[in-house]
Amino acid sequence: MSSDDDSDQAIDAGGILYHERLTRTLSRIFQVNRVLYAGRTKYQRIEVVDTPDFGKMLILDGKVQFSLRDEFIYHESLVHPVMFTHPSPEEVLIIGGGDGGALKEVLKHNIVKNVTLVDLDEEVMDIVKKYVPEMFKDSLKDPRVKILNMDGRKFLAETKNKYDIIIIDVTDPFGPSTLLYTKEFYQLVNNALKDGGAMVTHSEGMYSSRKEFVTIYKTIETVFRNTRAYGAFIPSFGDAWTFTIASNTLDPANMDVKVIEKRMKERHVETQFYYPEMHKVLFTLPKDLLKDLKEMKVTISTDKSPVQMPA
Amino acid sequence: MSSDDDSDQAIDAGGILYHERLTRTLSRIFQVNRVLYAGRTKYQRIEVVDTPDFGKMLILDGKVQFSLRDEFIYHESLVHPVMFTHPSPEEVLIIGGGDGGALKEVLKHNIVKNVTLVDLDEEVMDIVKKYVPEMFKDSLKDPRVKILNMDGRKFLAETKNKYDIIIIDVTDPFGPSTLLYTKEFYQLVNNALKDGGAMVTHSEGMYSSRKEFVTIYKTIETVFRNTRAYGAFIPSFGDAWTFTIASNTLDPANMDVKVIEKRMKERHVETQFYYPEMHKVLFTLPKDLLKDLKEMKVTISTDKSPVQMPA
Amino acid sequence: MSSDDDSDQAIDAGGILYHERLTRTLSRIFQVNRVLYAGRTKYQRIEVVDTPDFGKMLILDGKVQFSLRDEFIYHESLVHPVMFTHPSPEEVLIIGGGDGGALKEVLKHNIVKNVTLVDLDEEVMDIVKKYVPEMFKDSLKDPRVKILNMDGRKFLAETKNKYDIIIIDVTDPFGPSTLLYTKEFYQLVNNALKDGGAMVTHSEGMYSSRKEFVTIYKTIETVFRNTRAYGAFIPSFGDAWTFTIASNTLDPANMDVKVIEKRMKERHVETQFYYPEMHKVLFTLPKDLLKDLKEMKVTISTDKSPVQMPA
Amino acid sequence: MSSDDDSDQAIDAGGILYHERLTRTLSRIFQVNRVLYAGRTKYQRIEVVDTPDFGKMLILDGKVQFSLRDEFIYHESLVHPVMFTHPSPEEVLIIGGGDGGALKEVLKHNIVKNVTLVDLDEEVMDIVKKYVPEMFKDSLKDPRVKILNMDGRKFLAETKNKYDIIIIDVTDPFGPSTLLYTKEFYQLVNNALKDGGAMVTHSEGMYSSRKEFVTIYKTIETVFRNTRAYGAFIPSFGDAWTFTIASNTLDPANMDVKVIEKRMKERHVETQFYYPEMHKVLFTLPKDLLKDLKEMKVTISTDKSPVQMPA
Repeated sequence: MSSDDDSDQAIDAGGILYHERLTRTLSRIFQVNRVLYAGRTKYQRIEVVDTPDFGKMLILDGKVQFSLRDEFIYHESLVHPVMFTHPSPEEVLIIGGGDGGALKEVLKHNIVKNVTLVDLDEEVMDIVKKYVPEMFKDSLKDPRVKILNMDGRKFLAETKNKYDIIIIDVTDPFGPSTLLYTKEFYQLVNNALKDGGAMVTHSEGMYSSRKEFVTIYKTIETVFRNTRAYGAFIPSFGDAWTFTIASNTLDPANMDVKVIEKRMKERHVETQFYYPEMHKVLFTLPKDLLKDLKEMKVTISTDKSPVQMPA
Repeated sequence: MSSDDDSDQAIDAGGILYHERLTRTLSRIFQVNRVLYAGRTKYQRIEVVDTPDFGKMLILDGKVQFSLRDEFIYHESLVHPVMFTHPSPEEVLIIGGGDGGALKEVLKHNIVKNVTLVDLDEEVMDIVKKYVPEMFKDSLKDPRVKILNMDGRKFLAETKNKYDIIIIDVTDPFGPSTLLYTKEFYQLVNNALKDGGAMVTHSEGMYSSRKEFVTIYKTIETVFRNTRAYGAFIPSFGDAWTFTIASNTLDPANMDVKVIEKRMKERHVETQFYYPEMHKVLFTLPKDLLKDLKEMKVTISTDKSPVQMPA
Repeated sequence: MSSDDDSDQAIDAGGILYHERLTRTLSRIFQVNRVLYAGRTKYQRIEVVDTPDFGKMLILDGKVQFSLRDEFIYHESLVHPVMFTHPSPEEVLIIGGGDGGALKEVLKHNIVKNVTLVDLDEEVMDIVKKYVPEMFKDSLKDPRVKILNMDGRKFLAETKNKYDIIIIDVTDPFGPSTLLYTKEFYQLVNNALKDGGAMVTHSEGMYSSRKEFVTIYKTIETVFRNTRAYGAFIPSFGDAWTFTIASNTLDPANMDVKVIEKRMKERHVETQFYYPEMHKVLFTLPKDLLKDLKEMKVTISTDKSPVQMPA
Repeated sequence: MSSDDDSDQAIDAGGILYHERLTRTLSRIFQVNRVLYAGRTKYQRIEVVDTPDFGKMLILDGKVQFSLRDEFIYHESLVHPVMFTHPSPEEVLIIGGGDGGALKEVLKHNIVKNVTLVDLDEEVMDIVKKYVPEMFKDSLKDPRVKILNMDGRKFLAETKNKYDIIIIDVTDPFGPSTLLYTKEFYQLVNNALKDGGAMVTHSEGMYSSRKEFVTIYKTIETVFRNTRAYGAFIPSFGDAWTFTIASNTLDPANMDVKVIEKRMKERHVETQFYYPEMHKVLFTLPKDLLKDLKEMKVTISTDKSPVQMPA
């Protein structure tokens, strides 16, 4: 989020802007160099814009999904903690993730035998492939990869496969993603995990949507034995973002740095943000957040009464 | 940054806003519930506004200085790492800090014998005392406290006192603070430290002004034996904020958690954000930042050519 | 709307702004020098702000009501055409007009014997008196003036007085003003007029709310024999504003310039915007507006189904 | 400027916006449905955007040049008053006007024998032709039309032709248009007029740039015998816009309505905004503007010290 090109028009000179609401009462305004795509898919509004501060950005229903400048922070934070916690993550399922970012990180683990990516919105994938080819790179040519364009929840309900790792990378609890943050959904996830498996989901903004975060965390906690939250600041989100890993056997918060180091080497994983010492750091949350995780009263998210982002 | 009062007008309904430029090409727009004060002191533009997302905020020359909702993150991050690194911080000097936040945290250490706060702008202090009394609380009645309204650099050049800890909490390198980020300034700081002493300064946004951060860091490095950077996400700043501790003897990045635990107990320090495990976490920086700290080419900031925020 | 003070911060430097929505998809952003008042009365949200472009502005429920820089255009356009059309406007009723602007213009006509101003919201009047004393000036000391704080429609339904001129200067058809733009309301107005009397109302933006304008015009037409629309550009409204005069006998659009000249002199009326030649000009509407007045299909506004501004 | 499509996202939902600065301290924010083109020509920044309020808009260097929804008001106001004032406008020169709007109106006068359009920026013309074909329609196939892409001032200095009417439709006095508002320029225009000819130029916003308007008006007055200003509210400009006609023989402000009526019929000119009665109305200016035209002190714009829009 630094505007390194001196030729950029300052924001005040007039021009094309992108307006993102962070909360009902707080917005960000990005100067836009170029609108690469703006339209609607069958499921959502979609824009791809190029900005001085973050490079190309994918925006769905008005919320930034990633920026090229810092997607590595988000996607490495989402994928590697759970992948390195697992000793042998061979079968991986990604629910959502149609922008290719999680897929790219998963494929870095040479131990992975196959990855199934189930994303509802084929158009989003096509638009990203066309306008932000940096995201998928050669992932789609990788023989380990299988893409399905269907409802992720429906897939989970019907599949007979089991996975070592399930990565949930869907839009905020709103519109098409509403039922992907409920107890019933996480039970389907649990059923689709092999013994010794683990899931991870992003779980909303640490400050901009703390109540939603705590709700998601506590909902997951009703389903799994070990539930661990962590967070990382994502500049293009304007907030520290939370993630939640859940497993019935593994505990990502108590990993030995040496073990992660060894696994990174063995699997030949190269990163820009994550490294073994960072792993533990991610799980060390601010004291006030720990307090809220203990004390905040929330209602468990269920299909009948799902957690929802305020309009 | 969550708008918990349902009666807040949504930002779109029209009304009073606060516009903060984060970079030349990225802005934030806060809905404003109330403008408590807006004016100019002898040195700078000043506003105190109350917002749904962050409560009361102090803004100097268009940049948020603190919000009541999260000032504890900033001020605890600024003060406690250096204070707990020092075994016996009895004499403390604060340069700037006219909002009272750093002072409040320093005074929590019962080992402190006296604190001198040197801030140029008496009017800022008066406005904070009047409109945000939560900041100073009873600090000014504490007999250990001495307030001087004068130029901090002039004070350093003239004082014959020596301090265990010097905390620099001044506005961004711009306007009245331009010469408080140069090699010459840090030499004055070094001269004013006792043997075994340490300084800390905030050192700009981790992402929004990375080049300025690296410049400040490397400038400090030319003066002190140990220079250590760390960072914490400050929601009301919209960025992870960096801090730099420097000392010729102490090393805050290699503190034993047990030692911090012991010192926190002995000194009876209560916090909302910081805790012993968090200390080390703060110093574990993202890999891409470590790379920039090593490789980014910057020009050391000197009185002749000081680092400056882009207009 | 020219920023004549060179010391004004440019809008881009950050600071306090006022955001007004002109339509659902078009906004104006005013830099604010000072917020003089911001709060809620019993009936509406109210702000008084001072801006570089328009000086002090009164804003109710997010819509600019007047600015000191150009209120003369609005209030002269509202008051003088109907007042000069009438040969002897001695008894005048103002419904709304709590900001004092219409009253000030009416009192310029020395032929006026008494003016009754009926405004629901006493607090608005008090705030204007305190923060924008330029509006009422000495009007309230004028023995011809009588102020009533009550619902204007209730007043009309109950009063036994008759008036030469009734001036309706209320907020947009929304919230407390919803039932002040219906057929039933205009019938009450008609009943309260003396023979030979006339009413005037502002009737919304010529471009920003054309459909509402045509609706109001055609609703009035169902009640009175002569209905005449006119318009004037009001810079602080960002639109040409329409007004509608209705009478069973008088026709403001066919006034002889000489007659107006004579009446202006006799009544000693001094103005800044309006003058005899301008009178006719105001009633000469753009061709496309004439077309819409003829052809646009609208539903007459009634108490059961009143015209309303879109949210 | 009414958002007639109910499916438009409200401005607050986040999305692509266009920010236009009206003055240093007042901005407009348009929601954008589609960015049709955004780039730079050799001379200026250019955007073509589609907005709910105004349809397609052409924007040069951050200033709206026209919108499809109301370009007829601007272009009819620019072209017809001068064209109908002249009894026989056969040879017409347009300086600027690369968007085709003035050309379209001129060609409606069947009495015109040839029109030469001289616009510096060929790329603007090409972009308008491609993205807003509604503007040129079939103008470019009209055998009376000749297009030259060169500097208008250079053309005037070199041409040996004389014209009945010269229409100046260039961007604001800024950048490439700076020397198209000076005394020396108007002398070139005067030299290129036939006896009995007349020129017209737009002359900036009536309120947003009154000083620039008065300066341009008074500069033209130093060159021609008759100089007449008039104005019309252009919704997409957010201001009443001024125009100035100058001639050594003709006087547009004293035209007989019957004559205009006759000429409109003879020449078969169809319009949407302008009509004979409107002609005189346009020249009847607000009293406060007449006062400024008499009393405001301005410096005549010359090549050495040209009038310029404030940055």
